[in-house]
Amino acid sequence: MSFDRLQKRIDEMQNPTVVGLDPALAHIPPYIIEKHIGEKGETLEAAAAAVTEWGLGLVDALCDIVPAVKPQLAYYEALGPYGLMALKTISEYAKAKGMYVIFDGKRNDISSTAEAYSAAYLGTTTVGGSEIFAYDADALTVNAYLGSDCIKPFIETAVKHDKAVFALVKTSNPSAGEIQDLYFCKDYKQGKQGKKGIQGTESDIRIYTAVGDLMEEISRDTIGKFGFTRVGAVVGATYPEEIEFLRKRLKNTFFLVPGYGAQGRSAEDVARAFDDNGRGAIINASRSIVAAWKKSGGEFKTAARDEALKMREELKRII
Amino acid sequence: MSFDRLQKRIDEMQNPTVVGLDPALAHIPPYIIEKHIGEKGETLEAAAAAVTEWGLGLVDALCDIVPAVKPQLAYYEALGPYGLMALKTISEYAKAKGMYVIFDGKRNDISSTAEAYSAAYLGTTTVGGSEIFAYDADALTVNAYLGSDCIKPFIETAVKHDKAVFALVKTSNPSAGEIQDLYFCKDYKQGKQGKKGIQGTESDIRIYTAVGDLMEEISRDTIGKFGFTRVGAVVGATYPEEIEFLRKRLKNTFFLVPGYGAQGRSAEDVARAFDDNGRGAIINASRSIVAAWKKSGGEFKTAARDEALKMREELKRII
Repeated sequence: MSFDRLQKRIDEMQNPTVVGLDPALAHIPPYIIEKHIGEKGETLEAAAAAVTEWGLGLVDALCDIVPAVKPQLAYYEALGPYGLMALKTISEYAKAKGMYVIFDGKRNDISSTAEAYSAAYLGTTTVGGSEIFAYDADALTVNAYLGSDCIKPFIETAVKHDKAVFALVKTSNPSAGEIQDLYFCKDYKQGKQGKKGIQGTESDIRIYTAVGDLMEEISRDTIGKFGFTRVGAVVGATYPEEIEFLRKRLKNTFFLVPGYGAQGRSAEDVARAFDDNGRGAIINASRSIVAAWKKSGGEFKTAARDEALKMREELKRII
Repeated sequence: MSFDRLQKRIDEMQNPTVVGLDPALAHIPPYIIEKHIGEKGETLEAAAAAVTEWGLGLVDALCDIVPAVKPQLAYYEALGPYGLMALKTISEYAKAKGMYVIFDGKRNDISSTAEAYSAAYLGTTTVGGSEIFAYDADALTVNAYLGSDCIKPFIETAVKHDKAVFALVKTSNPSAGEIQDLYFCKDYKQGKQGKKGIQGTESDIRIYTAVGDLMEEISRDTIGKFGFTRVGAVVGATYPEEIEFLRKRLKNTFFLVPGYGAQGRSAEDVARAFDDNGRGAIINASRSIVAAWKKSGGEFKTAARDEALKMREELKRII
């Protein structure tokens, strides 16, 4: 249940890493792109074919040492419908190789549309008398700005098909705080007149805390055997103090932590994302692994595997 | 520039309506779905073919009386890559017929990924020496929870290709207020101790106001000849008082207003979205128009056109 499948795989591999399969074309070795342009011309179809070859190669290079992959949907979408075909092919291959597949799409909308998104990525679409999985990912990232009624359809689908979501709580980008760090008060008079004052510490009354609390509250009855609900949280490694605060507060929330590696954060920073048992978080690295060939000069699969092994050792050291 | 193209088309047609092309399969007449299942079996490919036939038919039925369409991406994504092909076909046809096409995807992510989303839907992807539009929509809805650095890539692309975005400010769903309506204070001590109190009215210190203000601020140098920037706002018709407040406050922001029709709001409610010149807003209706055949019993194109004409008359009455 819940994040049980993911946590079990992390435990078995002793590696809480998810590799971001983000096919910015600059991450793909030029010889692969040139080969497909030679066959299909300078087209999005050629680019998608190059992405597919690259993605399948990375799955082969990583599937026995890394528990999960996280394709960033934007890069596939930038190649039009062919890009989505590449996403489907790579994702199905990764699943067949035993990997846990997190689609990073940061989707959401009003509840009827949230149902369509959950059907698209985690559940099924009904055509005539057939129930068909369009993608069948294991998890999807979602945006919670619209509130709980837009998260609930994802929870229902997740329960039905043993899937999960990660809601954005505190993101890793520089301007994350503009909205997320605002202090809030539920009672206007509290804020306006300060008669009673706001209860709690500074972190207690940040917007990201309100979002995190809400997500844990609405998913409480989906807690699995490792103690985590089906609604995880995206918490950026770039804000280590916030990770520490949120880890203590959201005891039943599994964290997806971007910002390690290319975004500049160390193993010590991300250590705070794990609970006392060394569980409850998975650390994402994208560029530093999938584009490692650019730094090392070696073959892209070998370079990615070497870098993933290095990251595993670094994380082992701190958990 | 900016929303100038859209406003001009609204003025010419005297109709500030955008029709939501949301292909929930239940909105499509069964005879169309059955025909394609007969040809392609119970597959997502058959469903996508039915969606394409339905969408092209609606564009034919509406293009001379409605200035814009808004495909809701979730429903296309639920059909897998074939669904995206349907989206591309319908969107290109609508553009060829002169319609302004707003992709409703509510996308966003950290800035490098936001660049990929803006390339995907508003701009181009570079393959070899070629710049290729994957979809070439006129506008895209985006989520602003991550702050300004994730909106800026969209603004850059919009300026380059004469496009626009709509950021979620106050959404139309019942739980919109859980996060969006929280009161905020920038200074913790203000909130905590109330020494100075918070300045302004109740609405001044809502999270949705902070988001709206931020969007107008960062897009100020993109104001076009009608006075609107390239970053519009989604403001739900289901909250008429908030629309009125935001219309007065965000004088340079073009509004996309969902919630009319099937979500229950009247012409009087949405009248508040327009400025003193009767400009600056477009009202969305989806189910009430595209699934009108279910109520009228007539042919789907005729039923949609009749309902769109009715909506145009209702809106004319109040502007």
